[in-house]
Amino acid sequence: MTEEMSGYRGKALGILKDSKVQVGDVVRVTMGGETLEGTLMPRYELADDEHIVIKLRNGYNIGVETSPSLKVEGVGARAKPAFTSLLPVEEKEELPTVAVVSTGGTIASRIDYRTGAVRPALTSEDILSAVPELSDIANLRAEVLFALLSENIHIPQWAAMAKTAAKHIEGKVDGVVICHGTDTMAYTSAALSFALQNLPVPVVLVGSQRSSDRPSSDAAMNLINAVRAAASAPIAEVVIGMHETISDTATVLLRGTKVRKLHTSSRDAFKPVNSSPLARVEGCKISMLVDDYVRRDSGRKLVLKAEFSDKVALVKFHPSFNPRVIKWYVDEGYRGIILEGTGLGHVGENCFPAIEKAADKGVFVGMCSQCMCGRVNMKVYDTGRDLLRLGVTPLEDTSSETAFVKLSWVLGQYRDLDDVRRVMTTNIAGEIDPRSVY
Amino acid sequence: MTEEMSGYRGKALGILKDSKVQVGDVVRVTMGGETLEGTLMPRYELADDEHIVIKLRNGYNIGVETSPSLKVEGVGARAKPAFTSLLPVEEKEELPTVAVVSTGGTIASRIDYRTGAVRPALTSEDILSAVPELSDIANLRAEVLFALLSENIHIPQWAAMAKTAAKHIEGKVDGVVICHGTDTMAYTSAALSFALQNLPVPVVLVGSQRSSDRPSSDAAMNLINAVRAAASAPIAEVVIGMHETISDTATVLLRGTKVRKLHTSSRDAFKPVNSSPLARVEGCKISMLVDDYVRRDSGRKLVLKAEFSDKVALVKFHPSFNPRVIKWYVDEGYRGIILEGTGLGHVGENCFPAIEKAADKGVFVGMCSQCMCGRVNMKVYDTGRDLLRLGVTPLEDTSSETAFVKLSWVLGQYRDLDDVRRVMTTNIAGEIDPRSVY
Repeated sequence: MTEEMSGYRGKALGILKDSKVQVGDVVRVTMGGETLEGTLMPRYELADDEHIVIKLRNGYNIGVETSPSLKVEGVGARAKPAFTSLLPVEEKEELPTVAVVSTGGTIASRIDYRTGAVRPALTSEDILSAVPELSDIANLRAEVLFALLSENIHIPQWAAMAKTAAKHIEGKVDGVVICHGTDTMAYTSAALSFALQNLPVPVVLVGSQRSSDRPSSDAAMNLINAVRAAASAPIAEVVIGMHETISDTATVLLRGTKVRKLHTSSRDAFKPVNSSPLARVEGCKISMLVDDYVRRDSGRKLVLKAEFSDKVALVKFHPSFNPRVIKWYVDEGYRGIILEGTGLGHVGENCFPAIEKAADKGVFVGMCSQCMCGRVNMKVYDTGRDLLRLGVTPLEDTSSETAFVKLSWVLGQYRDLDDVRRVMTTNIAGEIDPRSVY
Repeated sequence: MTEEMSGYRGKALGILKDSKVQVGDVVRVTMGGETLEGTLMPRYELADDEHIVIKLRNGYNIGVETSPSLKVEGVGARAKPAFTSLLPVEEKEELPTVAVVSTGGTIASRIDYRTGAVRPALTSEDILSAVPELSDIANLRAEVLFALLSENIHIPQWAAMAKTAAKHIEGKVDGVVICHGTDTMAYTSAALSFALQNLPVPVVLVGSQRSSDRPSSDAAMNLINAVRAAASAPIAEVVIGMHETISDTATVLLRGTKVRKLHTSSRDAFKPVNSSPLARVEGCKISMLVDDYVRRDSGRKLVLKAEFSDKVALVKFHPSFNPRVIKWYVDEGYRGIILEGTGLGHVGENCFPAIEKAADKGVFVGMCSQCMCGRVNMKVYDTGRDLLRLGVTPLEDTSSETAFVKLSWVLGQYRDLDDVRRVMTTNIAGEIDPRSVY
C-alpha cells in the first residue's frame, strides 16, 4: 500500500513513469481540451490498467482514461503520508476508558487525504486525529494486534483476540472495541462470545463496508458508535455494532452468536439471524431494544476460555454431494463436522454410511440448516430420524457458522464426546434460543 | 408408511401390541378418569416412544402419554386406506390442460383421514378427490415420476424431470406443475430453468411445508394456486409457487434461478434472492408484479438441454478451511468447483496454491458469496484481485446454489474451458441480473 506506484499496472503505469510522477504528487492532467489538477491517488478499486485516479481539490476522486491524447505533468512535490500532528492526548478523568484493538480491515486505517496513502492507526493519537469526535466519548487505549484482511483470520487468531480483550478488561477498561474486516467478523464475534465468559463490560466488533477513502464510507460513524457502546452501553456481551440501515442514522448492536453478514456491499449488511437487534446507538443515545441481555457489572470477574481446536469442518450439503468428503475429514483426524443440511436438518441417504462411520470413530457430527432461519427438527421426517439414530446431533436454531465456531471451542475445552454433545446442545452465549422464533 | 404399526417403538409399541390394536383401528383410550375415542394414527412427528396418537372424531390429532395407568382398547374394525371413489373425470373442453408431475414430498400425497395412511396421488382422479377445486381450474394429466424425499433428489433426477416436463409440453399442455419436496426444490428449479429453454408455457414447482395430515397444512392452497398459475399465468418461465406470507392469502411465483428456501419450517420459507417476486396468485386472480419476464407463447418451440455433469462441487469457505479439500476434488476428477467465499468474493490466501493448481489442471473455479445478497466484486480488495489472477471466475449476483446447478449444466453442455467461462458469466435464465440490486 505504501509502494510509490501502488496499484498501477500496464498502460497507466507506463504513462505515469514517462511523466515521472508518483502517487501523492500534485499533477496536471490534460485530455482533449480539458485540464484537471489534483493529487495522484493509488489504485484500490479497479484492476484495469486504463485509468489513473486523481483527487481533485474538492476532495472527489476522478478516474481518467489513458487515451493516446492524455498528458500527465507533475506540478507539485510529493507530500509524504502523515497524520495531523497532535500533542499527546490528555486523558479526561470524567470519561470512561475504551480499548480499541485493531486487527485489520479498513475501519481503523487512516487515509492521508493529501496523498491517499493508507496506514494503520497505531496510537490513540492516530485514531483521534482521524476521528476527533472520539475524544469527547472516551479515553482510548489503542493497540494494533495484527493487520489482516479478515478472510485471513483463522482459528489461532480467535484465541489471540480473546486474550487481548481479556488483558484490557483485566486492566479495567469500561469496554473493548475490536476493529475487524467484515468478511469473517461474524465468525470472530461468535468465537469471542464463547471464549470471553462472565464478561463485566461489552466487547464491540466493528468494521467498515466502504473503505474510508470513499465519500460514502461508514468507517467514522461505525467507529464512533462502537466506542460509545463500549464506553457506556448497559450490556456486557460480545456484539457486532454496524449500520442499522443504508443511511447514516443509527448503529445496531447484534448478539455475537446470532449475526451474519448478509450483503456483499451494503452498509447494513449485518443482520440478526433467529434473533433481534439488542440495542440501537443513535447520536448520543443508546436504547436497549430487548430485555433479555447480560447487564454490565464491573464487579463481575471475566473467565477466559481461549482454547480452540482446528480439527473441525463446516460442510455444506448439496444434490449429488460426495459423501467421501466426510470420510476424508475423518481420515485427516478431524474431531468434529458441522453439516449444513437442507430444510429441517437433512442430507441425502447416500451420506448415511459415511456419517455412521464418522460417528463410530468418535467424530462429533452436528446438524444445522442451510435455510438459515428457523430451527432444525430431525423428528419430523424419516431422514431426520435416521440421522439421529446414526448419531447426528441437531443444533436447534444455531446458525451453521456459529455452530462451527462453537464446535471448535467445545473441542478445545473437552475431550469426552458426551461432554461435547452436552455442551453443543446447551446454550452458552445466546446461540440457542429455546423459544421458536419466526 | 403403510406398515401396520407405522412409527411406533418401545413402550408405546408394547402397549399397542398388548391391546391388539393396529394403526387405523378405532380405539378407546382411558387414562385416569378420562376416556377418549378415535382412530389410532401412525407416528410421523415424534421419534419418542412415550406417546400414542389418536385422531378424534372432530378431526384433531391428540398425543396420549403412555403412563402406567393408560388403557387402550379396540372398539372398531380397521378401515383400509382408500380414496373417495370417483368416476373417471370428464375433461371439460373449455378448460386449459395442466400436467401434474409428482416427484415426492407430501404435497401430492393423499392422507386417508379415517386411517392416517399416506399414499401418493397416482392419477388425476386421486388428485381431484383430494383437492376437488382443481376440476374447475384445469384438466389434469397426472404422472408420478418418482417418490423421493427431495434431499434424495440428485443431479440425475434433474434430467429426468426436465425430460418429463418437455414430454408434456410437447404434448401441448398449457403448463406443467411439478410437486417436489421443499428441501432441494430451489436447486431443482434452477436446474429446470437451464434445461428447459425457450419455454412456451410455465413450469411451476410446488411443495408443502406442513404435511397434509396437519390442520395447518399448506398443501391444498399451494397446489390449487400452482395449477392456476400453470393453467393461465401469462409467464413462460420455471418458477417456484409457494405461500407469500404465513397466512393462507396468496401464492407468489419466484424465478427458478433466484430463489432460496430461507426458513426451516414456516410456510413462506421461499424468498427471492437478489430479485423480486414475479407474480402473485390470490384467489382466482393472477397479478404480474414485474415487467421483466418471458411471456407465454404457445407457438414457441421448447429446446430441451437436459445434460448435466455430476463432477461439480459446491464448497463453503470458513476460517481455517483446509485447502486440501480443493485438491481432493481435483484429484477425484471434478471438472468444476463453486467456492462460497466471504464478502465480495474472497477466500483466505492459504487457499491460493490449491486454487492455482485446480485452474492449471483445467478445473473451472467460480466464486459466489456466502453473504447471499448483493454481488461479488473481486476488483475491490487485493484478495479478490489475486484470485482473479489465479483464474477464479466471479459469478456476479448468482447465488452459490444456482451457480452450482448452472455449472453442472454448463459442464454437461460444453467441454472447452473457454466456453464454460463464457457461459458461466452470461445470463441464461435470469440468474445474472446486470443491474445492482439492493
